[in-house]
Amino acid sequence: MLAVTILGNNSALPAFDRHPTSQVVTLDDQLFLVDCGEGTQMQLSKYRIRWGRINHIFISHLHGDHYFGLPGLIHSMGLLNREHDLHLYAPAELISILQLQLDAAGSSLPYQLHFYPLSAEGVLLQSDRFKVSCFQTRHRIPCWGFRFEQVKLPRKVNPEKAIRHEVPSSFFDELKKGSNYTRKDGTIVDNNLVTDPGPRPLSYAFTADTIYDEALIPWVAGVDMLYHETTYLKELNDRAAARFHATTHQAATIALKARVGRLLIGHFSSKYDKLDQFESEAREIFPNTDLALEGVTFKI
Amino acid sequence: MLAVTILGNNSALPAFDRHPTSQVVTLDDQLFLVDCGEGTQMQLSKYRIRWGRINHIFISHLHGDHYFGLPGLIHSMGLLNREHDLHLYAPAELISILQLQLDAAGSSLPYQLHFYPLSAEGVLLQSDRFKVSCFQTRHRIPCWGFRFEQVKLPRKVNPEKAIRHEVPSSFFDELKKGSNYTRKDGTIVDNNLVTDPGPRPLSYAFTADTIYDEALIPWVAGVDMLYHETTYLKELNDRAAARFHATTHQAATIALKARVGRLLIGHFSSKYDKLDQFESEAREIFPNTDLALEGVTFKI
Repeated sequence: MLAVTILGNNSALPAFDRHPTSQVVTLDDQLFLVDCGEGTQMQLSKYRIRWGRINHIFISHLHGDHYFGLPGLIHSMGLLNREHDLHLYAPAELISILQLQLDAAGSSLPYQLHFYPLSAEGVLLQSDRFKVSCFQTRHRIPCWGFRFEQVKLPRKVNPEKAIRHEVPSSFFDELKKGSNYTRKDGTIVDNNLVTDPGPRPLSYAFTADTIYDEALIPWVAGVDMLYHETTYLKELNDRAAARFHATTHQAATIALKARVGRLLIGHFSSKYDKLDQFESEAREIFPNTDLALEGVTFKI
Repeated sequence: MLAVTILGNNSALPAFDRHPTSQVVTLDDQLFLVDCGEGTQMQLSKYRIRWGRINHIFISHLHGDHYFGLPGLIHSMGLLNREHDLHLYAPAELISILQLQLDAAGSSLPYQLHFYPLSAEGVLLQSDRFKVSCFQTRHRIPCWGFRFEQVKLPRKVNPEKAIRHEVPSSFFDELKKGSNYTRKDGTIVDNNLVTDPGPRPLSYAFTADTIYDEALIPWVAGVDMLYHETTYLKELNDRAAARFHATTHQAATIALKARVGRLLIGHFSSKYDKLDQFESEAREIFPNTDLALEGVTFKI
């Protein structure tokens, strides 16, 4: 299962009851928090997300609208008697800021906070179930995108066929990994005869804040769902470039060229009250586009 | 005119749609922001307070629920093209935190931020219209309360009486200051004969977070309105003391002993859903007590 719940979809200045960037990515039994603008802890409560289950937080960059909610969140996790470890992936300077704040408050967290400064593109963490990679986007300051994906799932054994081909159940775990079975008489049972492929692994990529940049494409190619910022409508091409942001048409062009399944757009400028035009403009180029509306969960 | 608008009335953990501490004190034409918990900029917008008019911000102490909204607020003031100076009064460590955050964002503010570290009790700033003083409260870390007061207002000239006593209008400004008038023949017109006292100067004190502490009384004595925290109901005396907070009965006792006009109570613990009992308990000792409800403006 892969789903994304939007907590904040606005750019820097909160407006029209839209909040700064934050989202929760659910990958099977994991909850990942991606960016944490001011008010994220309130949004988590509002949408009844069980914060206790968030063990990994990813911060794309150190513009305030992407992390000013983090100090409050990690502090509140302490007040809620969290005891299990929390893993934080963010630009290196963040840990100094958090440490200064803890010192000033005469506080320490009742749980272990592990900090991983973002430094090189590639795999950030990996388990037997999922993998998270990071990559650089092109913004005014160093900024990182994240790709979340299920690890290739095991093949499914067809027990009837296996028995018919005399494969013992003690060998089923090997079958799931794709191995062939060699009978006592030396004949071989081809794995494909007794198993079906596992479900296709799902993937999601979040490109944070970025100017239009085709260098992102290899990192997001083929994902089932892509989030790409659209701070501006297409007519404000120049302003978008000057501020290292993207437009509707640019986001949709990246989605098209990267052959993704679905596009989510957000990080709307506070100059826009209504959002309809964001959706219609992006759909001109990439029809399977949705507005990243707050409180909505997008499931794959 | 003196009024206090409550933006946040909850203690550390946001709950029941209550926000961490923040209030706006209006003293004639001045707007003072007192504390700035997470979400304050959203609360300012929600209650349609014109932020541009806030020139002085006071932060009582560096527990996050009293200042985690400040970085976002001062950054948003920049995005809104603020050009006039902002004055910030807070514990010394705050400026290092703000500076680290600005550096990490590669940002500078488009207006001048003047920082005044709180270090000694007494007058913090004074004009011909108002005076703000600070004093220490007793909390787990250094914490400051603030007293806002109008400066003694000029006497009011009664023009009819002044003419009857042959005082020329060119001397009216002197009359307002309390001077007697000496006629050409040497006789003296006593000021009291031709003027009435100016309106009584109004005052408000905010005691931030504090344990029950009678040492506060001289600092808040006789104010027209006092804000005193009541994190807990009276039955939790011991817990309040252990955490350097106060109860309803303690807040009301300070109000009574300091002979203030009116008491506002707030900083309610997140363990309480309903607040009625806070009001009734405080009124047992100090009847003129109100709950500091968010969005409400308390005028004197």
